[in-house]
Amino acid sequence: MNDFEIFGNVKQAENFIDKIKDNKFLFSFVISYTETCEIPGITFAGSDKDSIKFTPPADAEYLYYGNCKTIDKIPMTPDGKPTPALLTKVALESSSIPHIVINAGSKVSPQLPFIQTGLSPGKNISINQAMTETEVSQAVNYGRIVGRTLASITDCLIIGESIPGGTTTALTVMRALGYDAKVSSSIPDNPIVLKNHIASMALDRLDSDNPYSILAEVGDPMIPFVTGMLSAASEINPVMLAGGTQMAAVLAFASKIGFNEKNTAIGTTSYISNDQSANFKSLVSEIADIPAISVNPLLEKSKFPGLKAFSEGFAKEGAGAGGSIIASLLKTKNNSSKFLELAEQEYHRIFTSL
Amino acid sequence: MNDFEIFGNVKQAENFIDKIKDNKFLFSFVISYTETCEIPGITFAGSDKDSIKFTPPADAEYLYYGNCKTIDKIPMTPDGKPTPALLTKVALESSSIPHIVINAGSKVSPQLPFIQTGLSPGKNISINQAMTETEVSQAVNYGRIVGRTLASITDCLIIGESIPGGTTTALTVMRALGYDAKVSSSIPDNPIVLKNHIASMALDRLDSDNPYSILAEVGDPMIPFVTGMLSAASEINPVMLAGGTQMAAVLAFASKIGFNEKNTAIGTTSYISNDQSANFKSLVSEIADIPAISVNPLLEKSKFPGLKAFSEGFAKEGAGAGGSIIASLLKTKNNSSKFLELAEQEYHRIFTSL
Repeated sequence: MNDFEIFGNVKQAENFIDKIKDNKFLFSFVISYTETCEIPGITFAGSDKDSIKFTPPADAEYLYYGNCKTIDKIPMTPDGKPTPALLTKVALESSSIPHIVINAGSKVSPQLPFIQTGLSPGKNISINQAMTETEVSQAVNYGRIVGRTLASITDCLIIGESIPGGTTTALTVMRALGYDAKVSSSIPDNPIVLKNHIASMALDRLDSDNPYSILAEVGDPMIPFVTGMLSAASEINPVMLAGGTQMAAVLAFASKIGFNEKNTAIGTTSYISNDQSANFKSLVSEIADIPAISVNPLLEKSKFPGLKAFSEGFAKEGAGAGGSIIASLLKTKNNSSKFLELAEQEYHRIFTSL
Repeated sequence: MNDFEIFGNVKQAENFIDKIKDNKFLFSFVISYTETCEIPGITFAGSDKDSIKFTPPADAEYLYYGNCKTIDKIPMTPDGKPTPALLTKVALESSSIPHIVINAGSKVSPQLPFIQTGLSPGKNISINQAMTETEVSQAVNYGRIVGRTLASITDCLIIGESIPGGTTTALTVMRALGYDAKVSSSIPDNPIVLKNHIASMALDRLDSDNPYSILAEVGDPMIPFVTGMLSAASEINPVMLAGGTQMAAVLAFASKIGFNEKNTAIGTTSYISNDQSANFKSLVSEIADIPAISVNPLLEKSKFPGLKAFSEGFAKEGAGAGGSIIASLLKTKNNSSKFLELAEQEYHRIFTSL
């Protein structure tokens, strides 16, 4: 357990880990889209502006095939740092944890079998309502169906996401719901001023404190969908929300519409929980009385600059990396050093096969 | 076990049942389409010609919601006999067996979350090639991905299907692969002459004995997709093909491309295995050395003519009814009489809520 840091409801964390550690995991990967990501400077999830919409399906394809179909190379930042899905892939493969992709509003469908919801991408919240309240309800209801199904066929459901620009909508949703959120970013020099500006523009339009109205105005499709999943799944079996800021927003909405705290944990990387520009630890405790687990994948020790970059603040989290590493280490009894070794092998494979 | 009849590899049937009876089941429901169903007189799966394409998604919706979204009422024959999905629903609900819908070429998408494959509907085999060989390979490959995923998150994967007109493509595929198949039908006065005529027209175009070419010419998308699922899933865990004629065609193709016989069984209703116009029992034994299980749901004893009709030859099987009843009885230890009681309750609910 030395590789994990526990916070939030620490006592319950031990119960949660005990309950899941020898059981079957299923990783569900929710891909989505908010046009908010098209605002220049808001995200690095993609090598340029036009390629951002391909990042979620390409992440999904990479998890299945080890390469992408929708684009030529795996998603990376403009200077070649790889998607955090690399960490997710290594975690899932080394532990034989199965996974399933869910399209909850992605602009582009992945070229593989995936769970289709028919949800639309979210609009740019700086200038538009993100979606209608009916769409929010639909997202929650479909999330509930998927969550119920998946939770009944596994012992522990892990939920990860890929939604470029999603930290900005997450920040805005949490503020609207009354939490003093500061958020992490895929960009080391976190564009806090820009994000706050967008959030303020969106928040200015709010004329209701109804959580569904708030989500409709300033959210994105991932948040209500994953909240629906969590809400139904946590009634059946343990659920680990795998992520940072975005999963905190899910938790914030879930605490309004109801979920089973006793079956819920949030799992992330130490790059999120130790991010000085954000306040993840106190935020989680403020939102819900659940355990939070963070793992240090030791990437700062990597010989590859592209992996080291995660520890320096690039793409600190995403694609459920943290939560899947935690599940992987629990299942395999590997430690973080072993994980680093496997991640380096995969990094090497990718960059020599390009 | 008095409610089951065992044939095929009888010795292995006991092992198979022992292996699965106390374990977790997952029912996967593959919906698809072949334009062959548009030939007048070929199917009763729908109240009229224009509504046939809605039957597979409507079956799927009914399983989830207890009513349909795509059409007003649950699918039924022109004179009001309900879809066999009624039996599937009662089986799954009474035993809390989770299910997941897969769209493998349905013309219409169901209004619920489902696994999307992007496969196209099959063409009318009496006049056209059903699909390209590339599409057959794609269907097999996607089936393999889905089968591998689902088999790794359950102890026993049940696969059912809904593809109107599918007995005709199944018949043709089996003949092309060298089996002397006579097939059952959703119509009591089975239009054998018409089916044989269509099969002959399709078989006349064949110029290769390559199984992929055969499937492309005279098959439908469900057969290669489910075969891919079976092929990958049976390497991991027990699989029950839930169906009659169509699943025999899957088995025929699977015996060409490879699957694990030791982990495979076929489960159906006694209305199929005792159908005098077909030769299901000998056909299964001819195709593969696997156990076959049939269940008598005692519908001939029902007070409702609409349920009794199944035993008289209407919609003898479909929507994985037989296999899901078998799994349900194994899991709940109910007998067929109890099942009949539950089916009558559901029938009553449907026809009083219309």
